[in-house]
Amino acid sequence: MNFCSHCGAGDLDLRIPEGDTLPRFVCPRCATIHYQNPKIVTGCLPVWEDRILLCRRAIEPRYGLWTLPAGFLENAETLVDGALRETQEEAHARVDIGELYTVISLPQINQVYMMFRSRLTDVDFGPGTESLEVRLFDESEIPWEQLAFRTIARTLRNFFLDRRLGRFSLHVSSIERRAPLPPDLLAAG
Amino acid sequence: MNFCSHCGAGDLDLRIPEGDTLPRFVCPRCATIHYQNPKIVTGCLPVWEDRILLCRRAIEPRYGLWTLPAGFLENAETLVDGALRETQEEAHARVDIGELYTVISLPQINQVYMMFRSRLTDVDFGPGTESLEVRLFDESEIPWEQLAFRTIARTLRNFFLDRRLGRFSLHVSSIERRAPLPPDLLAAG
Repeated sequence: MNFCSHCGAGDLDLRIPEGDTLPRFVCPRCATIHYQNPKIVTGCLPVWEDRILLCRRAIEPRYGLWTLPAGFLENAETLVDGALRETQEEAHARVDIGELYTVISLPQINQVYMMFRSRLTDVDFGPGTESLEVRLFDESEIPWEQLAFRTIARTLRNFFLDRRLGRFSLHVSSIERRAPLPPDLLAAG
Repeated sequence: MNFCSHCGAGDLDLRIPEGDTLPRFVCPRCATIHYQNPKIVTGCLPVWEDRILLCRRAIEPRYGLWTLPAGFLENAETLVDGALRETQEEAHARVDIGELYTVISLPQINQVYMMFRSRLTDVDFGPGTESLEVRLFDESEIPWEQLAFRTIARTLRNFFLDRRLGRFSLHVSSIERRAPLPPDLLAAG
């Protein structure tokens, strides 16, 4: 953020506004406070009989790796509407959205994943413009080493464990990246 | 949004970028696409024995009305960290955060509420700068007509119903405002 999106002034201050507790970009001319907040990624885990639908990404980041249908919640959408839209866009698939299943905070990248269990209503699916390939996997076929995101691996791992236990429950967690190596260790590497 | 926050250009285009499906503000000079997405409100329902802690708002909107401790999730925070922070700021209270309890999409105002059940660890609480008053209410005392938000009323209603049933479960829902009256009806009113 270099300029005020309200009045166009440059030289934004990064300071704690009066009555606030965190530094914000504040416009020196019109005094607009520019808040920045985490985004929600909404999506689903589509099931057909005992198989799961995955999409192979045709876009960065993680081009070529496998993921569940999911993407940023848009303004004016509910979580369920967003999950349905992403599933349609990425896999041309229709699902009945079931229970909210994993909620994963990613504080380092300012995202919260919210994944629903769902049932495919038919197997007439195929890659959208953001996917190279879409297919059903049974548990033994899941490409664990080729998954795009740790949130997706965690959601799938929970699912197969819960399915074995015969009982699905909500999983709320967070993933905090390991601290980066200090520069002297990096240089030594 | 009147100016590009990246390069300061005015005359932003509101158009659907290539490969996208929704209109975005796009900078005609540096081509930055400015996405706007819903915000998360994270908070909790603090319980002490059979009573609930509520805060009376010292800020707009809904000055003077009662609410549960909750506020916008900040960058670099987990949902639980945000709920703890808001509870400390608004009620100077410490809680053990329990299960995620209500998730409510508010598509008309681009928010998603995420409220956790929690237990006060002590009764040494009091109003923060955003509260006029903080106190414990038993069910019969809840000021239903003086609650600040429908999300708060829904969360409390679910809680008292579930408590009576002896079983708490996650509630995922949305609140969509009634469509506004058409202008001719408004004029007639």
